Amino acid sequence: MASRISTLKFLFVLISSFTISQKALAGDPDIISDFLVPQGVNNLDGNFFTYTGMRSLVDADFPTNFTVTKASMAEFPALNGQSVSYAVLQFPSGSTNPPHTHPRSAELLFLVAGSLQVGFVDTTNKLFTQSLQAGDMFIFPKGLVHFQYNADANNPALAISAFGSANAGTVSLPKTLFATDIDDTILAKSFKTDVATIQALKAGLASK
Amino acid sequence: MASRISTLKFLFVLISSFTISQKALAGDPDIISDFLVPQGVNNLDGNFFTYTGMRSLVDADFPTNFTVTKASMAEFPALNGQSVSYAVLQFPSGSTNPPHTHPRSAELLFLVAGSLQVGFVDTTNKLFTQSLQAGDMFIFPKGLVHFQYNADANNPALAISAFGSANAGTVSLPKTLFATDIDDTILAKSFKTDVATIQALKAGLASK
Amino acid sequence: MASRISTLKFLFVLISSFTISQKALAGDPDIISDFLVPQGVNNLDGNFFTYTGMRSLVDADFPTNFTVTKASMAEFPALNGQSVSYAVLQFPSGSTNPPHTHPRSAELLFLVAGSLQVGFVDTTNKLFTQSLQAGDMFIFPKGLVHFQYNADANNPALAISAFGSANAGTVSLPKTLFATDIDDTILAKSFKTDVATIQALKAGLASK
Amino acid sequence: MASRISTLKFLFVLISSFTISQKALAGDPDIISDFLVPQGVNNLDGNFFTYTGMRSLVDADFPTNFTVTKASMAEFPALNGQSVSYAVLQFPSGSTNPPHTHPRSAELLFLVAGSLQVGFVDTTNKLFTQSLQAGDMFIFPKGLVHFQYNADANNPALAISAFGSANAGTVSLPKTLFATDIDDTILAKSFKTDVATIQALKAGLASK
Amino acid sequence: MASRISTLKFLFVLISSFTISQKALAGDPDIISDFLVPQGVNNLDGNFFTYTGMRSLVDADFPTNFTVTKASMAEFPALNGQSVSYAVLQFPSGSTNPPHTHPRSAELLFLVAGSLQVGFVDTTNKLFTQSLQAGDMFIFPKGLVHFQYNADANNPALAISAFGSANAGTVSLPKTLFATDIDDTILAKSFKTDVATIQALKAGLASK
Amino acid sequence: MASRISTLKFLFVLISSFTISQKALAGDPDIISDFLVPQGVNNLDGNFFTYTGMRSLVDADFPTNFTVTKASMAEFPALNGQSVSYAVLQFPSGSTNPPHTHPRSAELLFLVAGSLQVGFVDTTNKLFTQSLQAGDMFIFPKGLVHFQYNADANNPALAISAFGSANAGTVSLPKTLFATDIDDTILAKSFKTDVATIQALKAGLASK
Repeated sequence: MASRISTLKFLFVLISSFTISQKALAGDPDIISDFLVPQGVNNLDGNFFTYTGMRSLVDADFPTNFTVTKASMAEFPALNGQSVSYAVLQFPSGSTNPPHTHPRSAELLFLVAGSLQVGFVDTTNKLFTQSLQAGDMFIFPKGLVHFQYNADANNPALAISAFGSANAGTVSLPKTLFATDIDDTILAKSFKTDVATIQALKAGLASK
Repeated sequence: MASRISTLKFLFVLISSFTISQKALAGDPDIISDFLVPQGVNNLDGNFFTYTGMRSLVDADFPTNFTVTKASMAEFPALNGQSVSYAVLQFPSGSTNPPHTHPRSAELLFLVAGSLQVGFVDTTNKLFTQSLQAGDMFIFPKGLVHFQYNADANNPALAISAFGSANAGTVSLPKTLFATDIDDTILAKSFKTDVATIQALKAGLASK
Repeated sequence: MASRISTLKFLFVLISSFTISQKALAGDPDIISDFLVPQGVNNLDGNFFTYTGMRSLVDADFPTNFTVTKASMAEFPALNGQSVSYAVLQFPSGSTNPPHTHPRSAELLFLVAGSLQVGFVDTTNKLFTQSLQAGDMFIFPKGLVHFQYNADANNPALAISAFGSANAGTVSLPKTLFATDIDDTILAKSFKTDVATIQALKAGLASK
Repeated sequence: MASRISTLKFLFVLISSFTISQKALAGDPDIISDFLVPQGVNNLDGNFFTYTGMRSLVDADFPTNFTVTKASMAEFPALNGQSVSYAVLQFPSGSTNPPHTHPRSAELLFLVAGSLQVGFVDTTNKLFTQSLQAGDMFIFPKGLVHFQYNADANNPALAISAFGSANAGTVSLPKTLFATDIDDTILAKSFKTDVATIQALKAGLASK
Repeated sequence: MASRISTLKFLFVLISSFTISQKALAGDPDIISDFLVPQGVNNLDGNFFTYTGMRSLVDADFPTNFTVTKASMAEFPALNGQSVSYAVLQFPSGSTNPPHTHPRSAELLFLVAGSLQVGFVDTTNKLFTQSLQAGDMFIFPKGLVHFQYNADANNPALAISAFGSANAGTVSLPKTLFATDIDDTILAKSFKTDVATIQALKAGLASK
Repeated sequence: MASRISTLKFLFVLISSFTISQKALAGDPDIISDFLVPQGVNNLDGNFFTYTGMRSLVDADFPTNFTVTKASMAEFPALNGQSVSYAVLQFPSGSTNPPHTHPRSAELLFLVAGSLQVGFVDTTNKLFTQSLQAGDMFIFPKGLVHFQYNADANNPALAISAFGSANAGTVSLPKTLFATDIDDTILAKSFKTDVATIQALKAGLASK
């Protein structure tokens, strides 16, 4: 048995010696080792598998705008190859998480406090909506456009979302469409409106 | 060898006897048989593996609006489990394929005739564009927002697109956002505009 | 576009007509449709994508024993094919979640309140441990033995765990080893002890 | 949002800094980033996602022998991780694409001009054939032996084939069997013929 | 815990009640349950997970021709979803396993007795060969053409091969090419020989 | 064709130039090349695909303790990306392979000689057992706890096990639980026993 363990240790050294490239390469398919360790990590211990970046949320004031705080592979490298990540969503009264998609995962939202209007549109253009109360969960299927809105005038809402990918990615549609210099003519034709309306939308989103 | 072949034939009968559910169930992951046969298909022969639905395009007049003709699993059931499909894209002068995503595949566009302005936006909100001429290919990565536009005032453009899924799916963003009854207030807040502008956009897209 | 939508509706009918088998068949690999709908579900709407089974936890008394409440595919069928699920973990003072594995997923634990001692053992038999405080996350890699313990004599601990599978599965090792009638001799030889010790362990676990 | 974008840019730099190894490593399973960028690529823009190597076919003379022109990961690196590729097949009158397999993908052939005899053999040794006309598609399932033949004495045939892999690979059976120095005795026993026949076949294929 | 177990039992009943379709549908991707049970199987116990079909080989006479005995999903249904299978290969003196491919798996051959000449050809047409002695293993990569030959005039050879798929499939090239009625002209052109040679090869293989 | 081959050779050089990182990175998902070659390997030939490490078992004395000899990716690098591996299991009279799991694969055991008591426990805590005789196979499903025991007082048993992963991994439960310094209190609470019993178990396993 001794020789097998030392072989595995040898593998660890190899892993340690080339590191960070794993972030880009390794995908969400199953990995062929227990976990993946970036290059600069020596003295591997429990700290590598711990993420403390959310501690600050515990006693912080509630934000005044809709705020997403992520714990994905970029923030927490040990998630690489483990196919799971989190985001904490904070909705002040009347705030919205604009329509968006996650290219690489479904989203399972758990509403911890407050209430929330949620919805998604499937590929047949059917809209599915729901009013959630504290304790409810809602699943936004993979790759579909979805949104959340806290319609409550008095109370904030707090949700935790889980993703079945270490890097689900986010495509925020207002920004993607109207804040990335897509040609005005293409947008006007696409949205069956005029260039002036497109430019007004762009100005509104740019002023943020 | 005789017994092995008959075992396989037995499997075929089993496959044939429950059929169509495969359309919904079987995903793009590798299948564990050579191919999947829907229930009503008897006398399996080369016709099952042939799709003639595009023949009509060969001598048809060019359409006056942007037109997509798909050969995916819904039209061509033999694609089930084979992880590949096609779409033919026809762009009259000045027409556009509005911003959209495919939830389950990248798109590899092959421009057969004419010219085309194409682009996509990645998850960092960076826009990538290109002017294509006949013979060029362009890859739209998985799950990202993209569009095509034939800016040529005189000539149509014809493209063939391949997908690495038998059912890539399409989320057309103008329709998904403004023609599916998402609440006006949510849209207005999301696009940082007023409800009147949202309603005008909805009216424009509905009038189609 | 009309014909494409009706094709998709046709698919929905097909899906509805054979239903529940999907629970067993469909795996965590990507699905080839937006979502999977069990047979008895008609009038598909937002309720199908909502899980209210955790509402009761919101105002409930904290349990007196360690308690797991799951929201996986068995409790929430819309998770089928979406590769994500949740469990809520409640630890009264001094309680433990015994060593266990999840055969089909890593576990990403988010400690919402209290403190927790956690650990896992990799395939080289190296133990990784950590003391977590509220707001911390810890990743238990796929398929490895792990445990949690609330060592605080006065305060309960509450955690939410996300899994990158709709059905991660749980193998609780004390029960698996000593409460399933594995032969005493095999266990005694395996744990290098005598049959009397094995029988005492079995009795202790059975008395629960 | 700014910090998230800069994190992603940081990832890009990391990706850029180790590049080309991705070609070999990254497989067709889903990637965990929007796309993969080889090492030497700076100033990433739309050109990286464009392949112009087929332009030359547009006005070229039709070849006098069967000719395959590929756009796979080797020719078009941006396909890496996107699970799709193309080949253009040109068949002068009477020419054949000899029996072959693709180890990593099905092939979806789209006959653009001319006519074609096609066929494949499944793992029960059943032959499936078809006569295709312009506009037809035919699916050759994953890993099975298949061939195409232009039986028309007067007209060439032109087909485009899509693959659900960025590197489908090709095993041409005449060359694999009779032009790679497999021992004559093994081949004679395998094909139940004599060594002289094998040597004649080898000579015929070598004389090409 | 009781309720969770009963939920799982409920799932078992559902699995049992629709059964056999799993054989065709379920692929080698990970399954979302511990195992898959065909419809007619009640009183599930250890027998379902046991295959006794190889017992007869233990004391049987060695065959006089090359013989393959498989334990794949067709013979041993419990392998469905477990991504592994076996074949026992028996080579009398001077016998060969003709060139073939497995469309869905690599093959890891373990030579238990005797000696064996083996080889495979990669997609660049490079031949790799080896002479194996008892105790040696050889890996034939996924989807590539390979063969084995017992050149020893006096001793039989016995090998066990493992596959990373429950249904690797076999494409035997002599039969696929020359015993399935592929058109003589296509074969003659493909192998750069005349129709008479093709017909002689076909006759030789048919006479078996 | 020449240019295509040279492109592939170029890829080989690239592969060779960065090598060993593949061991850690490449997972069991399908690879996008025929095989993966570690960095130091030049003059690639059949030896790379051959493993001779089991030759020594052929004439060796049977061991006096239960012994596992593996041929996985660590011992045989050519298995990387091929999703298959072996282990040889030798059981002297009365010896046991203690309860364990393989995090990344099912195990298909082939009993070559002797007899064996085997069993596994599923995630509903149901025990499945069997008595095997020479020639029998038994499948231990993915990720579940299982064990083997040679109850025969006079005869050894020999088995070969195949895995559908190049690196299935092993979690030996007695060692994982009682020989890795998990806190005595946590173990005592988990196994519903006292600290003294835990310490006795630890001592027994340590004395090995």
